[in-house]
Amino acid sequence: MISFNNKLIEHANNTKSLLCVGLDINPDNLESNSLSDLIDYSKIVIDYTRDYALAYKPNFAFFERWGSKGFMWLEEIIEYIGEGPILIADAKRGDIGNTAKQYAESVFTHFGFDCITLNPYLGRDSVEPFLCYDSRGVFILCKTSNGSGPEFQNQIITNKRPLYQEVAYWANDMNKNNNIGLVVGATYPDELQIVRDIVPELPILIPGIGAQGGDLEKCVKISNKSSIGIINVSRAISFPKDKSKSAIGSIAESYMLKINRALNE
Amino acid sequence: MISFNNKLIEHANNTKSLLCVGLDINPDNLESNSLSDLIDYSKIVIDYTRDYALAYKPNFAFFERWGSKGFMWLEEIIEYIGEGPILIADAKRGDIGNTAKQYAESVFTHFGFDCITLNPYLGRDSVEPFLCYDSRGVFILCKTSNGSGPEFQNQIITNKRPLYQEVAYWANDMNKNNNIGLVVGATYPDELQIVRDIVPELPILIPGIGAQGGDLEKCVKISNKSSIGIINVSRAISFPKDKSKSAIGSIAESYMLKINRALNE
Repeated sequence: MISFNNKLIEHANNTKSLLCVGLDINPDNLESNSLSDLIDYSKIVIDYTRDYALAYKPNFAFFERWGSKGFMWLEEIIEYIGEGPILIADAKRGDIGNTAKQYAESVFTHFGFDCITLNPYLGRDSVEPFLCYDSRGVFILCKTSNGSGPEFQNQIITNKRPLYQEVAYWANDMNKNNNIGLVVGATYPDELQIVRDIVPELPILIPGIGAQGGDLEKCVKISNKSSIGIINVSRAISFPKDKSKSAIGSIAESYMLKINRALNE
Repeated sequence: MISFNNKLIEHANNTKSLLCVGLDINPDNLESNSLSDLIDYSKIVIDYTRDYALAYKPNFAFFERWGSKGFMWLEEIIEYIGEGPILIADAKRGDIGNTAKQYAESVFTHFGFDCITLNPYLGRDSVEPFLCYDSRGVFILCKTSNGSGPEFQNQIITNKRPLYQEVAYWANDMNKNNNIGLVVGATYPDELQIVRDIVPELPILIPGIGAQGGDLEKCVKISNKSSIGIINVSRAISFPKDKSKSAIGSIAESYMLKINRALNE
């Protein structure tokens, strides 16, 4: 059975794309509180980005916002996306072992995702239940893209390095089945460089491009020096100014091309 | 409008209970994979613990395990519990601001919980969207009950203290609306003592009693020295050896009484 990390790299080679399309279908951006409008719109985003996306990353919060109907929507769009793209559950879960096991069943067995984002705060036994599924993987939060991320992540800890670096060493050490990656925000390119040097073999998922203003070129180059760096874009693709189908498609295409240009320079 | 922390204390005084009944309805424990069996059983647990519970704490993983049908179950049991008990969303969420806002809408507005457990790893802007709801609150993970919790939580950080203590100071500092509490596992009573001294005014939610083997008496005394300490019991109440209704009720009662005895000694 192919490992998750190899599956990801193979799929990136086949599609010639490192673009992950984040699905954060925000009612405020759509200016509609009708769930059926949001469902229709999410399908348009999928239709018009399909040719350019290595992966889709539904952000669970925007589905849970609607309770069971939101989870029905999530089930529906997973089926709508279908075979092909890598499916990333952006759920940022983190809980004790017997609970983590249920979350793993939820995202991998019930929903059918290929991988999930996880929070490291509870340590190893909160991650391990996710590591024993064939061809499935995890992305552990290392250095997040938000402004207050450094409050804890940049604290210098026992080993004289910042916490986020300790998380990177720790994740690397746990990567026995070649199915662990890290999340590092594009808003912190210097830290991305450090993390890439700590984990040369781990995939890195990079949010923070687009609305959050991260430096795309720099991040593509650094993260793809070895293994693979995937660039996530959510709002900037899903909600272009005029919300037209053609704008969604052409922005997705232009991100894919910009990433590939940076890669080949 | 009453603050969440005052509402919690007032309700504990009225019910004369500090017992939180955790709803982790595990198919392995019930030895059934039928969702309708699990739903029926969860209602039995609620019926037979109602007289002893200050709060109910549904653990989201055990509902998400079943996707949209699991969330329908969660919606159903929240309605089934009805007015009265404090409802704690054990979801351990943690995400950047615009996403956190959606999670807050989910648990407070859609599901109608009184409070939610949160992970501190992303810092202040991941918590703030939850702090502006009338009479709603958060419990931030500080020192978790699991064996690998110390991997990061006990790292000595910049200020020469362990990370979990830094989280306690940080949470205390954010508690402007009297709606923040902490989670500290009963499996670490010495750390609970330290945390109680750091945050004399914050409620503490204490899991790890029962199946996980924490010291009930010690935890009740320490956590209730000031403000309030709530004792969560999940598996030990929901799944007594014979799974009988009378056993569920009498175990819940005996926990409530043991807690009150420790309190009054």
